This record gives sequence, C-alpha cells and structure tokens, in this order.
Amino acid sequence: MEVLDLTHRIASNTSGQGLHEITERVVSLVESAGIEAGLCTVFVQHTSASLIIQENADPSARHDLEVWLCRLVAENDPHFTHTAEGPDDMPSHIKSALTATSLAIPIIDGRLGLGTWQGIYLWEHRHRGSSRQLLIHIGT
Amino acid sequence: MEVLDLTHRIASNTSGQGLHEITERVVSLVESAGIEAGLCTVFVQHTSASLIIQENADPSARHDLEVWLCRLVAENDPHFTHTAEGPDDMPSHIKSALTATSLAIPIIDGRLGLGTWQGIYLWEHRHRGSSRQLLIHIGT
Amino acid sequence: MEVLDLTHRIASNTSGQGLHEITERVVSLVESAGIEAGLCTVFVQHTSASLIIQENADPSARHDLEVWLCRLVAENDPHFTHTAEGPDDMPSHIKSALTATSLAIPIIDGRLGLGTWQGIYLWEHRHRGSSRQLLIHIGT
Repeated sequence: MEVLDLTHRIASNTSGQGLHEITERVVSLVESAGIEAGLCTVFVQHTSASLIIQENADPSARHDLEVWLCRLVAENDPHFTHTAEGPDDMPSHIKSALTATSLAIPIIDGRLGLGTWQGIYLWEHRHRGSSRQLLIHIGT
Repeated sequence: MEVLDLTHRIASNTSGQGLHEITERVVSLVESAGIEAGLCTVFVQHTSASLIIQENADPSARHDLEVWLCRLVAENDPHFTHTAEGPDDMPSHIKSALTATSLAIPIIDGRLGLGTWQGIYLWEHRHRGSSRQLLIHIGT
Repeated sequence: MEVLDLTHRIASNTSGQGLHEITERVVSLVESAGIEAGLCTVFVQHTSASLIIQENADPSARHDLEVWLCRLVAENDPHFTHTAEGPDDMPSHIKSALTATSLAIPIIDGRLGLGTWQGIYLWEHRHRGSSRQLLIHIGT
C-alpha cells in the first residue's frame, strides 16, 4: 500500500487534437492508495491542453464535442496577435480556458466516484500531440 | 457530529432544463461536519448535467444565462452525429464540457466560504429532468 | 511555520477587465505552509469575476483571450433581461460561468505544482474593477 496524501506525476503522450482517455491510470492510483473515502485531484501542467469528464460509451459524443469546439474557436481569427507558434496556438489557449485545468473527484467506498458513463480525458488542443505532464493528488 | 473526511451521496430531482439550487443541502452537510477550516468538493456523476456557482439574488441572471447558453449550443446542429437520444443529447454534453463537473469550496470559520451573492446550482441540460446523483466530500 | 489545513483570505484590487496575476501570492502561502505534498485550492467569492490558469510568458496570449471572450459574450444582447447594473453585468455572469470559480493545484516536492508556463490569474469581467475576495485552502 502506498503512503497516503501523496502527489503523483504521470505523463501522457497525445498523438494530436482530441480526447485521450486516462481513466484507468487514475483509477489504478486510487486503488493503490487503499482509502475508503477521500478526494482525487487531477491537474494538467499545460495551457494548450485541458481535462474533461465525458461520456465513455459512444465515441461519437467525443467526436462531436471536438468538432463543435473547433468551430467555436476558429483558427486564423483576424483578431489574434499571438500567432508565433502557428494557427493552432491561440485557439488552444482559448479552448483550455473554456474547459478545465483541474478536476476533483471524490473517493467513496474505496473507489473513484465516477458515474457509470463518465470517463476522464486529457484534451489535446494542438495539432501535433506531445508528452503532457499531469499531477494527481490523493488525500483523505 | 459526523465523522470527518467523509464522502456523502445526495440525489437531486430536476424538473427540466435550468439551474436547480442545492446550496442549503451542501451548507447543511458542512455544518454537520463541525470543522473550522477545510474543503468541500461537490461532484456530479453525469455528463449531461453540470455544476455552477452563480448569483443567488435576482432570478433574471439565471434565466439569461440559460437562454444565452441554449443559443450558443444550438440543437439540431447539422454537424452532430451523436443524435440517438434526441436533439438535446449532444448539446447537453457540450454544455457540461463548457461548465463544471466539480466545484471546490473552502470552509472558513466553521462555514462554507461562499460569497454573499453566491449560490450552488445543479444545471440540468436535458429537456426532461431526472434524478441526478451528486457526491460531496468534506475534508480538512 | 503556519498551522496546516488552514483557509486564508486574500483580497485583490482589479483596475478593470482582464487578467490580474496572483501567482506569487499563492506560491508564498504554499511555501509558508511547509508541506511536501498536498493540495492548494483557490476560490473566488464573486459571480462577475473568475479564475484561470494561463500562459505567463507572452502577454499577447492573455490579450487575445480577453478580446475573444468579449466578442463571444457581447454586451447589449437584446435577449438580456438582467440589465439593472449596466451592459457589462450579464456578460460578466456568463463569462464567469464559462471559466472557473475554483482551481485545485497539487503541491509536490514542497512546491506548488504549476507547469513552467502556467500562471494563476484573477479574471475581472466588470469594466470598473473592484476589491475581489479570494479564499485559499492548503491541505495535505
């Protein structure tokens, strides 16, 4: 059994824009902690990727979500001045601002308290994926 | 006095789209915990309903918020492919993604640290309400 | 060294719409706590200002973010009914709803776990700034 109240580091490689599931990795850390009740917090250390809890059943929901957000936050907006890193740079910051940098999920009955249809996803907003760093805190 | 560091389950029945206040239920759980300082986390176990802290005084603010979001995330978007459950299915996932699945509110001087004009609301995004499950963690 | 598991109050004066950095004040409280691993939660006690973690390097990213959000949530929307406090009243509630009221950041190796390019900002949505109240909880 691991020491409680620890902060873990994990990395997740993304292959491009879209939702990358990390549910199993978070569930595994919570199970290792061996606590009955508590709180698990997931944090992404980037401003061009974010976190989201979404439907884990039908991939079409995640696809439509990605398409909708890309249409709301269009590339090549003539108002953008922060364009040095390419057309997906500023949209990725805006998408991060509209979604979550941290997620807090209670632990109940020794398990991560996700609903039946909820999965945890790292949302990559850059065209070219990269290695994204996450922190996961588990406390009582 | 209840045992500290507990995760509570509550259910909230929603009658349809819009903000349903849950402030008093959360305040009551925090008061029962009897702690001077700590953290209260509210989590919704669904991907078609979300959480929001908003103005608790004038109902017109909540009404305008609902109308604005329904116009931003229109039903019957021709780009949607995830339509099996009806025209409000995909918009409800998008609205959840743009708002919060978890809220963390510090406890200070023995009370939930909401500002004077802040209330906690469960935001139902489906036309037909249902019984929504929430988890509430209170820790030090 | 301060007592652990404390909730702190800080105030931040904003001079008008936009992102006001509070990173150093949060880092300082975490360092004073003297804990190796834990969780820091920042909460804003208002519904017309919010919190965001964004790029701390190039100010143009924050400028473009502000411009983009002001265009998405336009003032003088004919659908608004909550207009007693002026044209920036309802847009400020909507902008708060689309961003964050609370942020949870793990503490790791005795330091606040921000990524290299991440800063913590109080986002003022009213034209006229004011004194904004924040709560900061630090726990293990």
